[in-house]
Amino acid sequence: MELNGVTIDDTYAEAFPTWVARPIITAVTEEWAYKAAVEAVGFATSTIGCPAEAGIDCFVSPEETPDGRPGYAVLICASKKKLKEQVVERLAECVLTAPTTAVFDGLSDVVANVEEKIPVKLHFFGDGFEEKREVGGRTVWAIPIMEGEYIGEEEFGAVKGVAGGNFFVMGETQMSALMGAQAAVDAISGVCGAITPFPGGIVASGSKVGSRKYKFMGASTNEAYCPTLKGRVEGSKVPDGVRAVYEIVIDGVDEDTVSAAMADGIRAATRVPGVKQISAGNFGGSLGPFRFDLRNVLKDYL
Amino acid sequence: MELNGVTIDDTYAEAFPTWVARPIITAVTEEWAYKAAVEAVGFATSTIGCPAEAGIDCFVSPEETPDGRPGYAVLICASKKKLKEQVVERLAECVLTAPTTAVFDGLSDVVANVEEKIPVKLHFFGDGFEEKREVGGRTVWAIPIMEGEYIGEEEFGAVKGVAGGNFFVMGETQMSALMGAQAAVDAISGVCGAITPFPGGIVASGSKVGSRKYKFMGASTNEAYCPTLKGRVEGSKVPDGVRAVYEIVIDGVDEDTVSAAMADGIRAATRVPGVKQISAGNFGGSLGPFRFDLRNVLKDYL
Amino acid sequence: MELNGVTIDDTYAEAFPTWVARPIITAVTEEWAYKAAVEAVGFATSTIGCPAEAGIDCFVSPEETPDGRPGYAVLICASKKKLKEQVVERLAECVLTAPTTAVFDGLSDVVANVEEKIPVKLHFFGDGFEEKREVGGRTVWAIPIMEGEYIGEEEFGAVKGVAGGNFFVMGETQMSALMGAQAAVDAISGVCGAITPFPGGIVASGSKVGSRKYKFMGASTNEAYCPTLKGRVEGSKVPDGVRAVYEIVIDGVDEDTVSAAMADGIRAATRVPGVKQISAGNFGGSLGPFRFDLRNVLKDYL
Amino acid sequence: MELNGVTIDDTYAEAFPTWVARPIITAVTEEWAYKAAVEAVGFATSTIGCPAEAGIDCFVSPEETPDGRPGYAVLICASKKKLKEQVVERLAECVLTAPTTAVFDGLSDVVANVEEKIPVKLHFFGDGFEEKREVGGRTVWAIPIMEGEYIGEEEFGAVKGVAGGNFFVMGETQMSALMGAQAAVDAISGVCGAITPFPGGIVASGSKVGSRKYKFMGASTNEAYCPTLKGRVEGSKVPDGVRAVYEIVIDGVDEDTVSAAMADGIRAATRVPGVKQISAGNFGGSLGPFRFDLRNVLKDYL
Repeated sequence: MELNGVTIDDTYAEAFPTWVARPIITAVTEEWAYKAAVEAVGFATSTIGCPAEAGIDCFVSPEETPDGRPGYAVLICASKKKLKEQVVERLAECVLTAPTTAVFDGLSDVVANVEEKIPVKLHFFGDGFEEKREVGGRTVWAIPIMEGEYIGEEEFGAVKGVAGGNFFVMGETQMSALMGAQAAVDAISGVCGAITPFPGGIVASGSKVGSRKYKFMGASTNEAYCPTLKGRVEGSKVPDGVRAVYEIVIDGVDEDTVSAAMADGIRAATRVPGVKQISAGNFGGSLGPFRFDLRNVLKDYL
Repeated sequence: MELNGVTIDDTYAEAFPTWVARPIITAVTEEWAYKAAVEAVGFATSTIGCPAEAGIDCFVSPEETPDGRPGYAVLICASKKKLKEQVVERLAECVLTAPTTAVFDGLSDVVANVEEKIPVKLHFFGDGFEEKREVGGRTVWAIPIMEGEYIGEEEFGAVKGVAGGNFFVMGETQMSALMGAQAAVDAISGVCGAITPFPGGIVASGSKVGSRKYKFMGASTNEAYCPTLKGRVEGSKVPDGVRAVYEIVIDGVDEDTVSAAMADGIRAATRVPGVKQISAGNFGGSLGPFRFDLRNVLKDYL
Repeated sequence: MELNGVTIDDTYAEAFPTWVARPIITAVTEEWAYKAAVEAVGFATSTIGCPAEAGIDCFVSPEETPDGRPGYAVLICASKKKLKEQVVERLAECVLTAPTTAVFDGLSDVVANVEEKIPVKLHFFGDGFEEKREVGGRTVWAIPIMEGEYIGEEEFGAVKGVAGGNFFVMGETQMSALMGAQAAVDAISGVCGAITPFPGGIVASGSKVGSRKYKFMGASTNEAYCPTLKGRVEGSKVPDGVRAVYEIVIDGVDEDTVSAAMADGIRAATRVPGVKQISAGNFGGSLGPFRFDLRNVLKDYL
Repeated sequence: MELNGVTIDDTYAEAFPTWVARPIITAVTEEWAYKAAVEAVGFATSTIGCPAEAGIDCFVSPEETPDGRPGYAVLICASKKKLKEQVVERLAECVLTAPTTAVFDGLSDVVANVEEKIPVKLHFFGDGFEEKREVGGRTVWAIPIMEGEYIGEEEFGAVKGVAGGNFFVMGETQMSALMGAQAAVDAISGVCGAITPFPGGIVASGSKVGSRKYKFMGASTNEAYCPTLKGRVEGSKVPDGVRAVYEIVIDGVDEDTVSAAMADGIRAATRVPGVKQISAGNFGGSLGPFRFDLRNVLKDYL
């Protein structure tokens, strides 16, 4: 298959379930909302070593937020067991502490049927001085703080979504692959309900499950896709003429959203000069139940 | 006391020990180094609820880095017990995974006697394909990855530093206090060896130890400094005419550095119109052994 | 009148005609499109001393651009006589020279009836090596350049629009007024077809026509709105308790768009703590034929 | 010659004289100083079609500015005849109008003997309400404006400097060349007294003097360096394996500074994967009297 002159492998991305929450963080200006959001979704690339996977989902305009101020929706993804703790701690430490912020639940903006509600009792921070109020039709707590008052909802929807949606961007040079990956991340940022949780949205060091040599490692370098090992390992999957491979990992609220994000990302990457091939990562079904065939994901464009 | 027409309380900031590491993250351009650094220091405002306190320390020019590329030094602060795990996980998940990065130890650039070394064995990720090499006089591991090769040192200095250095910026309006706090953060960013770990560098909701009402809370709102409670609590410390208080929290590699950061930050804040008073937070010695008297911190300027 | 507790003066903004073009600048990533756009709209706050008024209008997603890449639409505003020269020079010097850019006409995306077409013959730069081509249904010139190839349309729509739409944000402190102005600029950035051409979108030094004292000056400080002159000039219009006034100036493709931008901007400013009053600038009809009554502009919200 | 494995052509950059001013723009925070600086140096890539060449030179810390606030130094370059007008208009329209700014002369920070002084009489804007004052040892005018007060020096040093210092970054792919150019621009931003005036610092469409085919064109595409014309023009200078060429143009206060900027820029570019060759542009002495031999510029590193 080809798209914009770039080879598309006839393969699929394998993904697995995760639980997802979607708080909206508002503030006095876009910039202050953004700063809080960045802190709240940091150290959250992969649940292999981070306490959650998280990222900024999309900008929410004043017309769309309960308090009429600009905001950013973020996705926080973790196992059902850990999600509550992660939502609580990230809101308590990174948003309640941030200048001028308020927080509202934003999951129902992108999910029709919100399955669960997570209670997030930040109002105890008010030490008895807190009070219930209504803002934009939402019941919130107003907590007296040193800057004035923090406003926050305390129930956040949670839904069983998809983690690990992915594709590979392969380039003639490392910089071609990198800019292809960047173009993909730019495009995916326009898809509400999906994030690319890695640094700048991009994975430079995609992994395989386990390790051949070091049995204590849960994951290790995916040598089949390492360009510098092309002549040295059997079964290298690095095409001739490719000198770098970046992986874009996508978490989203459901399969359709992840598929749309993959389509937009791949299309954008194929428009970057020097991007040669697109592929995707799978482990024969051992990783998870979701399967995104590139042929299907791109069916409207091929 | 007064500085630039702003009242300086004759009080002190109380602070406590922490362990500190200082990796330098380099990349192909400043922007890519910055993206990795931002991810690596996220979700790291306060060890009350975050796994570490961390922040970007300063830009390191190509002339100063071992590989001749631009970089950012970050500080990662935690208890001695948790520091190793935090350095390992933040480098493994947020830097090894980031495009074009390399990592070097940068603690000796700001600390004369580095007390301890933390081993960070990321090279196992190479699954046997990794190899030792020398870059700019440093022994590093080169790990084959999908983008090409990751270069990293595997021993990081650690030093017993200072956490919780602080001061309060009090303003006639919330926005005056906020911009005063922002000016302070800007100024402190120029002090190498010190960070302001909260979102955007600023704390909107400073806390007291424990809670009057909810015994299960380890910290709660510092009602004495809450402007909206001024008439409602006894012993309010909100001066007349002050409508918002922001706290700047500073972690640093030693007392002198934290003191210098406080001085630069306070001076900057006093130049912002509408900033009325500067104070600092202390708990009568119950929090920790370090004491930063504002009178002493600012002795060159008062 | 009041909106969100802020006094709205029962007055109007006076504005005047300008000619407007709206090129869309695309590039390999959002960032590179943005860099070119920033250069192209610089030194363009007021035609009093700048060769044009210009600004970034809005982001244009890959789905909406002719070449499927991300882009930014910009507005360039000048007299009919000067507009062609300004569009030519700003595209020739700031976009044709910028990495990976292409340019397309974007006026018909926001204006139903495009009145005029400006020819922009950049293809002569190709020195005979240029060739006509079609991209996304548009006839463009492909010009061989050192980075590869520049793609550009050469006819740009022009329409008689509105310059100088405006309102004043008055604050209890300078920082309250500034953040109110920033919130307004943020909100207006979401209105396609309108820009705020001053630095960061904000005017710190609003002017009156002419000068009392220096006859050679075409414009001078608007002393009636200068807080530091409140006790020293007759007829000061600075309300009690106001210590700073910022003006937001808006240029747009038509009256409805400027009115919508004013409404969104004013609403956003009134949500910022310490913003006390909103007014607007007019000169009794001597400046221009357009009149935006705040009462009318805000009729849906008052 | 080779540097970091990249071929360095044994050629030279040819450059010509320009007059240079260096205002420092300070503001309440770094961000607001930056916004004003960006507007002031826009539409200023090449005096072929822009009224000046200009760019942000470097950040100036609060310790180094006369008013103790953060600032950015900018360079404004033009013919002696046009420089005064450009400094006046860019300060009047883009800095006096910008929130919280003040302006000071910064040329003597980077030039030992300042040859000339440009008078910039913005104080007439004060309409008689302005007054002289002293700030940080400088005589300034304080002008009452709507936000409060503008502070500015009114004499700016000017020096005969160098325009058109340059080098070419040639890459295996367009994205390799682009990132090489970006790395160069990053490095040059650390050299005080030198700017890269093109969009993002980079020229995508380097030109030759005049045109073969269109006699009315003063400059046209440099076909010898156009990769897509390699097989079609005689005397192509595009090396085999090169698919894109970017030019970095440097203006500076003197020859040594431009040479240092070239050295730092070239070194940085050679560290980017896929950068294959470095060259420079010259016209046999017809453009100007300055000559920067790459062999000499890089003598400490080759």
